[in-house]
Amino acid sequence: MLRIGVLGAGRIGQVHARAIASVPGAHFAALAEPMEAVAKQVQADYGCDLRSIDQIAASDDIDAVIICTPTDTHADLIEQFAKAGKAVFCEKPVDLDLARVQRCLKTVADTGATLMLGFQRRYDPDFNALRKAIGDGRIGEVEMVTLTSRDPGAPPLDYIDRSGGIFRDMTIHDFDVARWMLGEEVETVYASASVLTDPAIAKHGDYDSANVTMRTASGKHCTITNSRRATYGYDQRIEVHGSKGSVSAENTLEANITVADADGYHRPPTLDFFMTRYMAAYANEIAAFVKAVTEKSSPPTTGEDGLRALALAEAALLSIKERREVRVDEILPG
Amino acid sequence: MLRIGVLGAGRIGQVHARAIASVPGAHFAALAEPMEAVAKQVQADYGCDLRSIDQIAASDDIDAVIICTPTDTHADLIEQFAKAGKAVFCEKPVDLDLARVQRCLKTVADTGATLMLGFQRRYDPDFNALRKAIGDGRIGEVEMVTLTSRDPGAPPLDYIDRSGGIFRDMTIHDFDVARWMLGEEVETVYASASVLTDPAIAKHGDYDSANVTMRTASGKHCTITNSRRATYGYDQRIEVHGSKGSVSAENTLEANITVADADGYHRPPTLDFFMTRYMAAYANEIAAFVKAVTEKSSPPTTGEDGLRALALAEAALLSIKERREVRVDEILPG
Amino acid sequence: MLRIGVLGAGRIGQVHARAIASVPGAHFAALAEPMEAVAKQVQADYGCDLRSIDQIAASDDIDAVIICTPTDTHADLIEQFAKAGKAVFCEKPVDLDLARVQRCLKTVADTGATLMLGFQRRYDPDFNALRKAIGDGRIGEVEMVTLTSRDPGAPPLDYIDRSGGIFRDMTIHDFDVARWMLGEEVETVYASASVLTDPAIAKHGDYDSANVTMRTASGKHCTITNSRRATYGYDQRIEVHGSKGSVSAENTLEANITVADADGYHRPPTLDFFMTRYMAAYANEIAAFVKAVTEKSSPPTTGEDGLRALALAEAALLSIKERREVRVDEILPG
Amino acid sequence: MLRIGVLGAGRIGQVHARAIASVPGAHFAALAEPMEAVAKQVQADYGCDLRSIDQIAASDDIDAVIICTPTDTHADLIEQFAKAGKAVFCEKPVDLDLARVQRCLKTVADTGATLMLGFQRRYDPDFNALRKAIGDGRIGEVEMVTLTSRDPGAPPLDYIDRSGGIFRDMTIHDFDVARWMLGEEVETVYASASVLTDPAIAKHGDYDSANVTMRTASGKHCTITNSRRATYGYDQRIEVHGSKGSVSAENTLEANITVADADGYHRPPTLDFFMTRYMAAYANEIAAFVKAVTEKSSPPTTGEDGLRALALAEAALLSIKERREVRVDEILPG
Repeated sequence: MLRIGVLGAGRIGQVHARAIASVPGAHFAALAEPMEAVAKQVQADYGCDLRSIDQIAASDDIDAVIICTPTDTHADLIEQFAKAGKAVFCEKPVDLDLARVQRCLKTVADTGATLMLGFQRRYDPDFNALRKAIGDGRIGEVEMVTLTSRDPGAPPLDYIDRSGGIFRDMTIHDFDVARWMLGEEVETVYASASVLTDPAIAKHGDYDSANVTMRTASGKHCTITNSRRATYGYDQRIEVHGSKGSVSAENTLEANITVADADGYHRPPTLDFFMTRYMAAYANEIAAFVKAVTEKSSPPTTGEDGLRALALAEAALLSIKERREVRVDEILPG
Repeated sequence: MLRIGVLGAGRIGQVHARAIASVPGAHFAALAEPMEAVAKQVQADYGCDLRSIDQIAASDDIDAVIICTPTDTHADLIEQFAKAGKAVFCEKPVDLDLARVQRCLKTVADTGATLMLGFQRRYDPDFNALRKAIGDGRIGEVEMVTLTSRDPGAPPLDYIDRSGGIFRDMTIHDFDVARWMLGEEVETVYASASVLTDPAIAKHGDYDSANVTMRTASGKHCTITNSRRATYGYDQRIEVHGSKGSVSAENTLEANITVADADGYHRPPTLDFFMTRYMAAYANEIAAFVKAVTEKSSPPTTGEDGLRALALAEAALLSIKERREVRVDEILPG
Repeated sequence: MLRIGVLGAGRIGQVHARAIASVPGAHFAALAEPMEAVAKQVQADYGCDLRSIDQIAASDDIDAVIICTPTDTHADLIEQFAKAGKAVFCEKPVDLDLARVQRCLKTVADTGATLMLGFQRRYDPDFNALRKAIGDGRIGEVEMVTLTSRDPGAPPLDYIDRSGGIFRDMTIHDFDVARWMLGEEVETVYASASVLTDPAIAKHGDYDSANVTMRTASGKHCTITNSRRATYGYDQRIEVHGSKGSVSAENTLEANITVADADGYHRPPTLDFFMTRYMAAYANEIAAFVKAVTEKSSPPTTGEDGLRALALAEAALLSIKERREVRVDEILPG
Repeated sequence: MLRIGVLGAGRIGQVHARAIASVPGAHFAALAEPMEAVAKQVQADYGCDLRSIDQIAASDDIDAVIICTPTDTHADLIEQFAKAGKAVFCEKPVDLDLARVQRCLKTVADTGATLMLGFQRRYDPDFNALRKAIGDGRIGEVEMVTLTSRDPGAPPLDYIDRSGGIFRDMTIHDFDVARWMLGEEVETVYASASVLTDPAIAKHGDYDSANVTMRTASGKHCTITNSRRATYGYDQRIEVHGSKGSVSAENTLEANITVADADGYHRPPTLDFFMTRYMAAYANEIAAFVKAVTEKSSPPTTGEDGLRALALAEAALLSIKERREVRVDEILPG
C-alpha cells in the first residue's frame, strides 16, 4: 500500500485525491492545505490526516507526495521532498525558468528519488490507443504529426501573467505529445502567433492563436494549432501520418447521439472542460505513478520530459521574436 | 449503336433521356410525347425524332424502347413492343394487378423479347458496393436485412389513388432490395401500418407509416421501415447483418461538410429528391439496359422481379387485413 | 447516509458493490454471500460486514437491499425484505411467471416499500441524452422506434434453460426501452424468430435471432431486432423517428480512433461486454435508487415496469406460436 | 452558344472536352492535337473539327479556347489567343517564372480578353458549401485555415523536373484555396520540407513532405500540410476555424458504406485520383468559364490569382533556403 500525501487541495488537487481513492494499492494518507474549510471538507470526504507541508516531509508514514501547489513553489517542493526520500508527482511545470528546472532535476537525480511530471494527455485512453496503433506498425514510419488543441475560452488575465504565456502553459502539453508521437527529438522550431480573441491579451504580452512547426533530424514534421477560443468545446485532436497510413483521435462529445431535422444532422458539442475530458486520464495517471513507485520503475513522464517540453516553448518564443526557424540546441545545448 | 425510342417525356422520361445521352453505344433516336411543347423542347435538347407510339413500334430504325408513360398503360405497351421485336425497358410496375402482370410476362416470354424493369436502387453505387461486400464474403452468411426508407413528404392525394397505395408504390422498391440482399425468396410476410402524418391519407384507404417483417425458409429475416415523412431528407438506408459481420450504407448528404458551433456539430440534410439521390443510379440503369440488349444477356432486373415484389406487396396488404403472418404462396402459389 | 445490504456477490453483485462505493450518501454496510472466499474478498475490498440473508432482513442498521441472487429467488426475497421494511432494488426479472410477478407486486404494494427494478439501459448517459432530446421536443411527436440489440455471442446452453429464453432474458430490456421511448403503452405485438447461430439453441426450445413489431393505440410503431451474435461487439442502438425529425444513439467503440491505410478507414469494435458498455449506467442506476429511497420518491424503473415488459415477452411468444398479431390485453387484461 | 476550341487532348484536355459536352450553351467546335490517333478518337467521340493551333487562333467561328498544352507553352499561347480576341481558359500555371507571368498578364490586360485560370478546387461542391457557410457567417470571423493535401503517390521523376517542384506544382492549389478561405492577402510565409518517401526526389532537388504557415496582416493564420504519399487515397481536407465556430470538409470515399467485423468498423479508401475526386469540380469549372464569357463578367479564378499563388510558392522556397519567415512583398513588391 503506497501512502500518499497531497500538497494543495485546489481544483487539480481534488482531482488527484479522487484518483488516489480509486486506485487499488494507493492510500490517501495526508493533506497539506492552508485553507482550513477546504482541508476539512476533503478530510470529511476521504478520511485523510491534515498536516503541514513540513510535517508531511518529515512523516515516516508517507511514501510519496503529489504536488498541486502554485507553479512558483514546484521546484523548491520537489527538491525538499526528493531530499526527504519521498517519491514525487508534480503537476507541470517544474518551473517557468529553464535553468531553475535544470538545477532542480540535478538535485533530484542526486537523491535518486522518483519524479513524475503531470502530463495527463499521455494517459488518455484514446491517445494511448492511437500511440499503440503506431507502435504496432499500423501506419509504418511516422512522417507528420498534426496536433489541434484549442481551449473553450481564454483564462483570466491575471492567470496569463502567472502562467508564463500560451507556449509555456498551453502548448507545453502539445510539445510533450509531439515528442511522444514523433519518437525522435525535435531539431528545429518555428512559431507564429497573434491575438484574435481579446486585445487585452496582447497588452499582457501574450497570444491567443498560435501555430508551431517542428522538424526532426530525419525530416519528420509536427505542426501544432492552438487557440484560446473554441465555441464547440475543448478541441483536442491528434493525427499522425505515416508511410503506410494514418491514425487520428477525434474529440469526445457530450453524448453519442445525433438529432436529424430539417436543418440536417446535429451532434452535441465536445466536452468543454479539462476535468471531464481527461477524467479517465487523471485516474490512469495516478495509477501509473503508483505503479512506477511500487515497482521502482521509471515513470512514463519524467522531469526530463518537462525540461524538453519547456525548451520547445522557449524556442517557439525566440522564433516569434526573430521571425526565423530556431534550433533547439540554441536553447538546450547538446 | 443501340437506337432507342422513349415513350413519354415526363419527369422520369427526361431523366432517362439524359441518361441515354451519357451512355456510349446508345442513341436517343425517337420520342413519343403527346404534349407538343414538351416534345419540342426535348427534341431541341437531344436532336431526337418525334414520332407517335405506333410509329415507333413500326420503325425499323428503333431497337429498343423505354416506357415512361402512366402505370395503367405499361402492360399493354410492353406487350405491343415485345411483339414488335423491340427490347423493352419499363418503369415499375408492370401493372397493379398481379394476374395482369403474369399474363403480360407470359406474352413477353413467348416473344423472346428482352424486358427490363426499372428498379433503380439496384444500380446505386453505394448499394452495389454493399452488395459486393456481401458477395465477397465479408459478412459471412446473411442473417438479417434492415431497410429504412422514408420519403421527405407524402405525394398528392390523387397520386395515392392511382399508385395502388404505399406498399405497391413505395415499399415495392424495398421488397425488391430485400430479395436482392437476402439471396433467397421470402416465405412469410407480416405488415403493420398506420396513418400519422395526415388523416386524409386514411380517407383514401392508404397508410403513411409501415413496418414489414419477412422471413425466408432458412430463417433469414428482413425488416422494412417506411414513412412518408422525413424532415431531414430522403432517408434511404440498408443494413445487412451476417454471421461474420455487418455492412451498411448510409444516406448521401447535400454536402460533405460539418459546421461546429456552440450548439455542437452540424451536417447538412440528406438529399431530398429521388432524382438527385439516385442520379448516378439512373445513368447506371440505362447503361445496364444497353449492355443487356447489346450482349443479349438477361437484364439485372426482370419482369419476374417486378412480379415477385408485387406479390410481397399483396401479402403485406393481406397481413394487415387479417392481422397475421401471410405465406407468400397464398398470393403466388409455388 | 443510506445503509445498504447486498445479497449475492456474483458478477453483477460486485458491479453494484463498486457502484455503491462511488455514490455519495450510500454505504455498503453488509453482504450476504454463501461462497466464503468470494465474501471475504469483497469484505477486504469494501470493508462491509458479512451476514446471512435472514440476518440482513432482521438488521436495524440496514435501510435497503440490492438483490443479486439467482432469478428464481427474486420474488421471495423481494417479499421478505419489503415486509421487513427495507427498500428493495432487484435485478430484473422479478420472476419468469407473470402471475407470480403480479402476486409479488401486490405484496410489495401492501407494505408500501420502495421497489426498484434493474433496467440499467434507462440510466445510460447516451440513451438519456436521446430521451431528453425527445422530451425537449426536438423530433416532435414520436412515430417509430427502432431498437437494435445484439449480443456478442450466445450464453451457455444451461443458462438458456434457466433464463426463460431470448424474449424474457434479452429482449426484455428492449421491451422496457420501447415503453420508455414510445411514451404510450403497446397494444399489439408480432414476433418472428429463428435459429441461425447454433442448432443446439433450437433443441433447447429457444431462438437466437428475433424481430418484434409493436404498435400502440395511436399508431406509433416500435421494431426490435435481436441477435445472439455480433462479431463487432455488443450492438446497442436506438433510433427514434418523429414528426419533426429523428434522434439516434450509436454504439460506444473501444477507442475513439481511426486508422487509415490502403484498405480504407478502420475504427475499433464496439465495447463487447455489458459491464464495460453500461459501466456508467450501473453507477447512475444505484445513484437513482439511493435518491429515490432518500427522497421517498418513486424510482424511475418500478415493479410495474418489470411486469409490463414481461407481458410483452409473453405476447411475443404467443405470436410466434400462433403466427399472428397478439393484443397485449390477451396477456395482461385491462 | 459559345464555340470552344481545345488545345491539347491529353488527360486533362479530355476531361475538359467531356465537361464542355455536358454544359448547356457550350459547343466543342475544334481541337488542336498533334498526335493524330488521339485527335481522331476525340473527333469520333465529340464530332469536333480538327485544326492546328494557328488555324484555331485565326478561326472566326471560335469564341474561346481551353489551353491544355504543356506548361512551358502556356504564356505564349495565352498571349497569342488574347491578341486574337478569344476568351482564354488556361490550366495553371501561366508559367513557372514570376516575371514571365507578370508580362503575360500585362499583355492580356491590354487586349481586354477574358483569362480564367484552372484552379479546379474552387469549383468543388463540398468546398463551395464550406465557403458558403463562412460567407453566411456561420463561423464568425475566419481565424485559422488548415489545409491537408496529400497525393496518393509521387509523380514520375521527369515530371518533377518539369513541374517546378512540389510548391509550384502541388502546393500551388493550396495557396489558392488559402487565399480563397482567408479572404485577406497573406503577409508572411514560412515553409519546412523534407524527403521521406524516396531519396531520388532529393536528388532532383525537390521535396515530398512539406508544411507551410502563413499569416495575414490582421493575424489570421493558414497552415498547409502536404505529402506525396497517402496510402488511403487522395487526401483533400479543409478546416476553417472562426470566432463563432468551425467548418470542415472531409474526404470523399469510394463508397458510402461501412463493414463491421471482429476487427471493428471499416470504410473504403478515399477516391485516389484527381479526375474522380474532382469530377464534379471540372464540370462546374467549365460551366463557370462559359458563364463568365457569355455574361462578360470576371471569372472566379483569374490570372492574378495564378500570379499570387505562384508568389506564395516562391516565398516558401526562399523561406526554406534561408530558414526564416519571408514577407510576400519581398517576392511581389506591393
